[in-house]
Amino acid sequence: MKIAVDAMGGDNAPAVVVEGVERARDRFADVEFDLYGDSKLVQPLINDSTRINLIETTEVIEMGEEPVRAIRKKKDSSIVRAATAVKEGQADAFFSAGNTGAILAAGLFIVGRIKGIDRPGLTSILPIAKPGSDRKNFVYLDSGANAEIKEKNMLQFAELGRFYAENVLQVENPRVALLNNGAEEDKGDRLHKEVHQQLKAEEDLNFVGNVEASELLAGKADVIVSDGWTANAALKATEGTAKMVLLLIKNGIENGGLRAKLGYLFLKPVFKKIAKLMGTSTYGGAVLLGLKAPVVKTHGSTDALAVENTIAQIRTMISSGVIEKTVKYFGQVQSEESMDKPDKN
Amino acid sequence: MKIAVDAMGGDNAPAVVVEGVERARDRFADVEFDLYGDSKLVQPLINDSTRINLIETTEVIEMGEEPVRAIRKKKDSSIVRAATAVKEGQADAFFSAGNTGAILAAGLFIVGRIKGIDRPGLTSILPIAKPGSDRKNFVYLDSGANAEIKEKNMLQFAELGRFYAENVLQVENPRVALLNNGAEEDKGDRLHKEVHQQLKAEEDLNFVGNVEASELLAGKADVIVSDGWTANAALKATEGTAKMVLLLIKNGIENGGLRAKLGYLFLKPVFKKIAKLMGTSTYGGAVLLGLKAPVVKTHGSTDALAVENTIAQIRTMISSGVIEKTVKYFGQVQSEESMDKPDKN
Repeated sequence: MKIAVDAMGGDNAPAVVVEGVERARDRFADVEFDLYGDSKLVQPLINDSTRINLIETTEVIEMGEEPVRAIRKKKDSSIVRAATAVKEGQADAFFSAGNTGAILAAGLFIVGRIKGIDRPGLTSILPIAKPGSDRKNFVYLDSGANAEIKEKNMLQFAELGRFYAENVLQVENPRVALLNNGAEEDKGDRLHKEVHQQLKAEEDLNFVGNVEASELLAGKADVIVSDGWTANAALKATEGTAKMVLLLIKNGIENGGLRAKLGYLFLKPVFKKIAKLMGTSTYGGAVLLGLKAPVVKTHGSTDALAVENTIAQIRTMISSGVIEKTVKYFGQVQSEESMDKPDKN
Repeated sequence: MKIAVDAMGGDNAPAVVVEGVERARDRFADVEFDLYGDSKLVQPLINDSTRINLIETTEVIEMGEEPVRAIRKKKDSSIVRAATAVKEGQADAFFSAGNTGAILAAGLFIVGRIKGIDRPGLTSILPIAKPGSDRKNFVYLDSGANAEIKEKNMLQFAELGRFYAENVLQVENPRVALLNNGAEEDKGDRLHKEVHQQLKAEEDLNFVGNVEASELLAGKADVIVSDGWTANAALKATEGTAKMVLLLIKNGIENGGLRAKLGYLFLKPVFKKIAKLMGTSTYGGAVLLGLKAPVVKTHGSTDALAVENTIAQIRTMISSGVIEKTVKYFGQVQSEESMDKPDKN
């Protein structure tokens, strides 16, 4: 399999991208890489070019640029070229740590949606932080901060998340939940009440009801579906608070004298484990689900470990055939629907 | 001043309510209490009836009841009777730890809105959890999980929050921010973009821009305004994550052998400080701002300390004259608006 990599995306690119790619290449003998970028900058960073091809591009989409305009104008940018390679079948997946909006736009407009999907969902793989939980992580979508979402988008997210959990995380009959402002089924605004009922009615889904934002990481489900707006607020608050509590502890230790510093030494393994659990490097990148190929991003401040882990994730996506299974499912749903309503389409 | 107290509300009522009231009575010589409840249950709990009057009621609104129906049907419930006493001027404020929906409904339909306020805002006083911050807490509204909110509601929340911060928290020229999905002013859906512009245009507000859910407790503002839906998700995620991180640490200590237990002993003061900072007992209750009198609730699982602190907060609300100042401001805004548009109303 071959992955098209934007070598220029991210705060520490191309260095950490190349380092992560080399680590993944050493780990997986079945993966080949096409690196899109400025060869003057990228070439000197490559230690061993086994299964790494460098493809020259002359433009870079910067972090602050307006995404849609950028992908239209900068045809020779590393993002546009790598996405185009996937569209044309020269690579199996697209990876970048660059401008999020531009990656999403390139995925949507260049790689393209699966037939039957109205809107792709930005999907994060998050840790389950409940002590003693069997499962280590879960699927969370849409975290793209999209406002003005419709019921059918959220139902499609549920199916997309289910396919991902089954095939990539290897969860049998994944539990699907709806992020809502209360546990009971009559909670929520009109949209969330309606989506709850529709998810419940969906026979092929193992719908387990609502989860509240307070229990995001509590392991109540393998897939948590949300509108992009609420998902973004809940995820940011969760990440921000975890960091803040650890910062308060750190501050307490620094100002707590010798006694606190001794305590820190003794508790160091505990803190390290929690920092690893909550760390963004461990779980790979965010996937734009609902596209014809894996389109995966990591955050701009990514390190080589996160790049390596994200490539491992992309490799599992490709080898599991999750996209093909999703295409087949939505193709069937579409043809059933067009049989039900022959006057439509 | 006199506070009408629902003695029957809360998981541990009437015991913790009576205990908290007695503690507050001992602390504040200028406060008198009317306790509404079942005298057979409440009377035996009162150690000293100085400035505590017991008023017999025969009904209780339970936690699970449909709020609006309950306050209409149970005319002799402790909630309805206490709220009615405030409406009729027999008490200056209403306090309960009971059914949240019923307290809000009693506030809205019995105590009544200030003229010029379209919708009251459920207001929490939250801790600032940034090490070294000058200020200890901030005003957060609307956290009532109300969906389908309008621009004008959020503008009114900003003014209500400003009056509260100025008068009750004694913050000079309080910084007001909007909870949004990005820091830049062009972020957000249509509603949040529009509210941002209107807050910016409001001359009497010290508007400092957007804050993200990741920075809810970071002390970026003295008042954070939000639609009820997003506010609820961000607050729940923040509280849930703080608890979860502390639980992970606890679990790590329990499973970390002697070394971890020693570490815990040394770090105990640090953990205690953080638990106190994040604890719900410290900051008093949630206020339904925009009503003609203070209507304040604490969570159902409240303890006597939270009851005592909430009464301290109500006392400051009454003595600061925050309600009177708010009434005056919105009265002026209304008469200015009716001069601007003489054909309206």
